[in-house]
Amino acid sequence: MLLSGLKNYPVNISAIVSMADDGGSTGVLRDELGVLPPGDVRQCLIALSNSSDIMRQLMSYRFGGNRLKGHSFGNLLLSALEKIKGNFVDGVEEAAKILQVKGEVIPVTEDQMRLVIKLKNGRMLKGEAHLDHSKEMRRVGVADIYLESKVGANRRAVGRIKKADLIIIGPGDYYGSTLPNLLVKEISDAVRKSRAKVIYVCNLTNKKGQTDGFSLERYISEIEKFIGCDRINFVVFNGKKPRRDFIKRYESQEGKGAVVEFKDRKRSRRYRVIVADLLSSIQGERKDTSVNVHTLIRHDSDKLARVIMTIAEWEDGRSLIKEIL
Amino acid sequence: MLLSGLKNYPVNISAIVSMADDGGSTGVLRDELGVLPPGDVRQCLIALSNSSDIMRQLMSYRFGGNRLKGHSFGNLLLSALEKIKGNFVDGVEEAAKILQVKGEVIPVTEDQMRLVIKLKNGRMLKGEAHLDHSKEMRRVGVADIYLESKVGANRRAVGRIKKADLIIIGPGDYYGSTLPNLLVKEISDAVRKSRAKVIYVCNLTNKKGQTDGFSLERYISEIEKFIGCDRINFVVFNGKKPRRDFIKRYESQEGKGAVVEFKDRKRSRRYRVIVADLLSSIQGERKDTSVNVHTLIRHDSDKLARVIMTIAEWEDGRSLIKEIL
Repeated sequence: MLLSGLKNYPVNISAIVSMADDGGSTGVLRDELGVLPPGDVRQCLIALSNSSDIMRQLMSYRFGGNRLKGHSFGNLLLSALEKIKGNFVDGVEEAAKILQVKGEVIPVTEDQMRLVIKLKNGRMLKGEAHLDHSKEMRRVGVADIYLESKVGANRRAVGRIKKADLIIIGPGDYYGSTLPNLLVKEISDAVRKSRAKVIYVCNLTNKKGQTDGFSLERYISEIEKFIGCDRINFVVFNGKKPRRDFIKRYESQEGKGAVVEFKDRKRSRRYRVIVADLLSSIQGERKDTSVNVHTLIRHDSDKLARVIMTIAEWEDGRSLIKEIL
Repeated sequence: MLLSGLKNYPVNISAIVSMADDGGSTGVLRDELGVLPPGDVRQCLIALSNSSDIMRQLMSYRFGGNRLKGHSFGNLLLSALEKIKGNFVDGVEEAAKILQVKGEVIPVTEDQMRLVIKLKNGRMLKGEAHLDHSKEMRRVGVADIYLESKVGANRRAVGRIKKADLIIIGPGDYYGSTLPNLLVKEISDAVRKSRAKVIYVCNLTNKKGQTDGFSLERYISEIEKFIGCDRINFVVFNGKKPRRDFIKRYESQEGKGAVVEFKDRKRSRRYRVIVADLLSSIQGERKDTSVNVHTLIRHDSDKLARVIMTIAEWEDGRSLIKEIL
């Protein structure tokens, strides 16, 4: 969502993507072909692609049938290119050419990366797919998250973070997409040491068993724990109230506090919070992206990009804007 | 082979492709997804593609693993595009754009097309895949071939034949690729009625149980039976003797007369036979095409194209060439 908005502005984008996904089509390809997980990379490539609508539709197309069922065409493309080129990173680069991608999509690591989810009852679940499917997790709740074994960061990812003007963290699946990148030690090290401004874009909603009732403040303090220091300079938060019937539906599924709140607006703080209307008003299908169109409460990619660009513009010292309230 | 050679000359190419294939990856996709058979179309698209080497490698890439095993990426591309566009012909057109194809690749029909192979013992085999796999067929031999039910021709295919300057038939799998197009009544009607010169490019080798010991003359008379009249104006025939060890290998597999012969060179005839060195001397792998590199005796695409272009040039009346012996 963020990338497809930012793509339209004159900025150099490097999307650093978690490789922890092991569910669905991605999981099958990981197991059967021994490839790195293509799912999240595919979505970033589509978001940054300037190729034809049909090409982007194709990337998100999911097969029916028996043995092909659920495989997205884009995942198959990435897996085939990995095999042809001999490694995933070069495969992604070829895919980026084919899809006329603006900027870069960089897998956070070239190693196999597997999440271990520790539940509050002490049980350990291995594999990111549990985040979508474990009933026990929904009931008991996640206590912590690790990598099964240490993985090395992709050097290009580290290099881009070191030289970045802005580092944007989120929005996205908290345990499934946002934290895994920070679990790679060289990545959180690089974020800590970088001179870039760090922007955190907070999720709109919470997930039962994962981020139950998380407030904005809680997200920030948790993420900074994973970074290893107080590093966030700007926080982007949605201030527009979602439709009442949407909230009800989320609460029936994810429990009380399903919509993330900004608790203490009056407290003094070391980061700036930009509160803005970030909600998408478009409901229903969007054929040209891989964005989950069934999400009722979601960010509008252009609104998000405009706010990010305002921060960037304000920060470069030559801005016409003197303050953001 | 023919198309990848002709592509480099200033001609308008329309490749009309049989839809009778139902073996291997193609067969699985046909059965499971209910799509039209992509295999032969894929090979023509690759042959005419001007896109990058990697894109052409990708099209021919076959997956390993369990459930994906044997599927070529190109077949999956065509099947996904058929589903997205709603029909196979439009899907092929999109694929042609993606692959920067020179000319057109036209499926001979949009109907499901299934071959019935009648053996010499009277048994009927349904499905083109038997041509590759039936041991009974190899022993007994094919007596005749039909379509299971009548199919309508693709109107564009008929249109292109009517307006063509040259119609080239073959080379290719005789029962599996060459004859199925002629079994579509409107296609053989159009070939009969067209004012184009008809060139027949004869196969180099025979197949056991299918074209055992066929001579050039036999091929011509059989094919003209399927066209419905004496229609062939030019015949292109290889006059270079293949390596002795290659011939031996073919004969051990396909029986005596595995290499097609031109029997009676002195007989007067109503078509001209152009005898030329058409053999490929390149052995081993070619990554950029889908051509069966394991075939030892095969056409050289450029030699074939040069001979075809000589005929075209000679026929337009303004040629410097006055005679071909």
